[in-house]
Amino acid sequence: MYRILIVGLLSVTIASPGEQVWANEGAPVVTVLVTYHSVSGSTEKMAAAVAEGVRSNPQARVVMKRVGNVMAEDLFSADAIIVGSPVYWANMAGEVKTFFDNWQFKFGVFPDFKMRNKVGGAFATGGQVSGGKEITMLTILAAMLGNHMIVVSGGGAFGASATTEGHSPGIDEEELEVARILGQRVVEVAMAVKTGLGSYKSVVP
Amino acid sequence: MYRILIVGLLSVTIASPGEQVWANEGAPVVTVLVTYHSVSGSTEKMAAAVAEGVRSNPQARVVMKRVGNVMAEDLFSADAIIVGSPVYWANMAGEVKTFFDNWQFKFGVFPDFKMRNKVGGAFATGGQVSGGKEITMLTILAAMLGNHMIVVSGGGAFGASATTEGHSPGIDEEELEVARILGQRVVEVAMAVKTGLGSYKSVVP
Amino acid sequence: MYRILIVGLLSVTIASPGEQVWANEGAPVVTVLVTYHSVSGSTEKMAAAVAEGVRSNPQARVVMKRVGNVMAEDLFSADAIIVGSPVYWANMAGEVKTFFDNWQFKFGVFPDFKMRNKVGGAFATGGQVSGGKEITMLTILAAMLGNHMIVVSGGGAFGASATTEGHSPGIDEEELEVARILGQRVVEVAMAVKTGLGSYKSVVP
Amino acid sequence: MYRILIVGLLSVTIASPGEQVWANEGAPVVTVLVTYHSVSGSTEKMAAAVAEGVRSNPQARVVMKRVGNVMAEDLFSADAIIVGSPVYWANMAGEVKTFFDNWQFKFGVFPDFKMRNKVGGAFATGGQVSGGKEITMLTILAAMLGNHMIVVSGGGAFGASATTEGHSPGIDEEELEVARILGQRVVEVAMAVKTGLGSYKSVVP
Repeated sequence: MYRILIVGLLSVTIASPGEQVWANEGAPVVTVLVTYHSVSGSTEKMAAAVAEGVRSNPQARVVMKRVGNVMAEDLFSADAIIVGSPVYWANMAGEVKTFFDNWQFKFGVFPDFKMRNKVGGAFATGGQVSGGKEITMLTILAAMLGNHMIVVSGGGAFGASATTEGHSPGIDEEELEVARILGQRVVEVAMAVKTGLGSYKSVVP
Repeated sequence: MYRILIVGLLSVTIASPGEQVWANEGAPVVTVLVTYHSVSGSTEKMAAAVAEGVRSNPQARVVMKRVGNVMAEDLFSADAIIVGSPVYWANMAGEVKTFFDNWQFKFGVFPDFKMRNKVGGAFATGGQVSGGKEITMLTILAAMLGNHMIVVSGGGAFGASATTEGHSPGIDEEELEVARILGQRVVEVAMAVKTGLGSYKSVVP
Repeated sequence: MYRILIVGLLSVTIASPGEQVWANEGAPVVTVLVTYHSVSGSTEKMAAAVAEGVRSNPQARVVMKRVGNVMAEDLFSADAIIVGSPVYWANMAGEVKTFFDNWQFKFGVFPDFKMRNKVGGAFATGGQVSGGKEITMLTILAAMLGNHMIVVSGGGAFGASATTEGHSPGIDEEELEVARILGQRVVEVAMAVKTGLGSYKSVVP
Repeated sequence: MYRILIVGLLSVTIASPGEQVWANEGAPVVTVLVTYHSVSGSTEKMAAAVAEGVRSNPQARVVMKRVGNVMAEDLFSADAIIVGSPVYWANMAGEVKTFFDNWQFKFGVFPDFKMRNKVGGAFATGGQVSGGKEITMLTILAAMLGNHMIVVSGGGAFGASATTEGHSPGIDEEELEVARILGQRVVEVAMAVKTGLGSYKSVVP
């Protein structure tokens, strides 16, 4: 009871217009794993912006790794996981799918549902406007749902995405911004899941 | 305060090893809207079992309504929403889709994202084993994600589902049980989102 | 045998660089139903361009109707059907979903699979780049697959689509062009299927 | 010519009411690639039944290979391709996704769309009733649509599927039968498309 009161006072102290106002005293530190596959570098740029969004919350710690380099401790020590992939044939890259398969084959998440209650998000890059980014993000989230994770969007209806060909080739500032929003959003929900939304006022768009 | 204390005492009374052990003192009461479309009665049976699962948590309050009867206050006062549909042509029923459309056309949820941070879940019934229940549940969750809701599975990889024709026509006890689990799971996450997972140990499968 | 020889000869006769070279003599006339829902007019513009694409093939006849106006004879006399929808909450509009539901409730397509072997395509418009156009097109195609239709893309990975807000509001020429391509593509496949199935009686369930 | 005539005669011999009655004289021989990943053997059993369904049509030739063994000539010489996968985390196996990725990385199908107009089908096996078989089949078909293939269902709403755990572990006769139907269905459509496209040269992009 005492602790909650403190939280309330601190919150008033640190609050300022447009800033994050989670009451830091009582809030947990959350660790977010941002993991991705990238060949051309586009998805990696998005991953960096997602990580930036995560780090913009002083309570958050980010680990950023290619899917092939993720170790058991990265997976299990994370409070939230954000997975990104380029679109290959209307779905995530084989490397990213194999990463999910390894959750079982290498990391043995089932039948204990070791990922349960971790928060999940997704991002994708693709050459075409409607060539598979939605399916990629939605199937990433579906893999997480099957693991009893708690999933959110952020930056867009299914997560953050960027179109890398056509009128605006590569990754532009607007696309980086939705990636940052995804990172912020996942942190926000991961913190909420740890401590409750009671003393928290979100400023993430 | 008095009411919450009572709840806490009752909780102690019913607690036993392997049972739900949410620390009731600090836990909020959550309201869950279970809403569905049903013609044959199968989806309604599932809805009733989902509601039963919700009510099995003493901190939870359930409102169960057909999608056509949901009012603005049902939607906005709920902490969590669980939507169920029969499968028609590999997707949710038109009635359920129209219900989601009305979130904007009748209830004006956008651009304020009035459903943000509410917890969402899905259930479906269908004649065939693989005839659209997954797509139905996943597109229900996708509609929720677009609303900035926090979505979970429960009872199955995407939510609770039942096959109503073939070897086991209608809804059997096993299918009712996954529906109950979905209700329990959504309550658990809705409570966590309100107060944090800190003092909570889940026993929901 | 004789007919097939004629076809070959005519084909040589009418061929010219860059032109459509179906041997018209033997080729069937195909009827394509282009049906859609539209409130703002964007999806209607796309529908008109799809219809234009259909009509660019001299063997093709087009019927263009809003989903609410489609009659049994429109559906059953068509060799191909192209369905378009605006995106509402990451899925087709309730009106379009209800149209598909009516394939059974009003038109009784099942259990005879009366739509079997008709060719199907999809188009969608949406405000956001990755806000549900893919899901809308893919679930339109999924509804068709459940009806034993033969489905194709055209103009894009899943069909034709247009983003109506952001950098390029409304429907631009490039988006109209992918809609025309979809119309042409569906005609091409419908003619192939109609020609090929002419001498065949299926026994596959 | 001689061989085709023989086929025609045989066809007359085996024809009986309710059987396949394609007019063999003009019908083409179609080659169907049935390719799959399998660890436990369940998906392989389904693949064998799909192949059996293909072979039940005297005009059809089948090539059955694991995805890792498919060579360029298998892919490009096939008139139709049927891809099967176990469900891992609500999607096709990484091996199958990597196979699709290799359509480009190893076989260079794009930008010429070398798979265009081939007919495609899908099958899946999964432990749970609604654990990802639909998503697996639909994303296999989506990969094919992006390649300008012509896709069909068969045996079920999205293709053939089997549930390998629970009440009926492994693959039972009913599940093998839907796999056979898928094989038959893909042959039927591939023959129609091949016959119909024979005298046609596409100008649609």
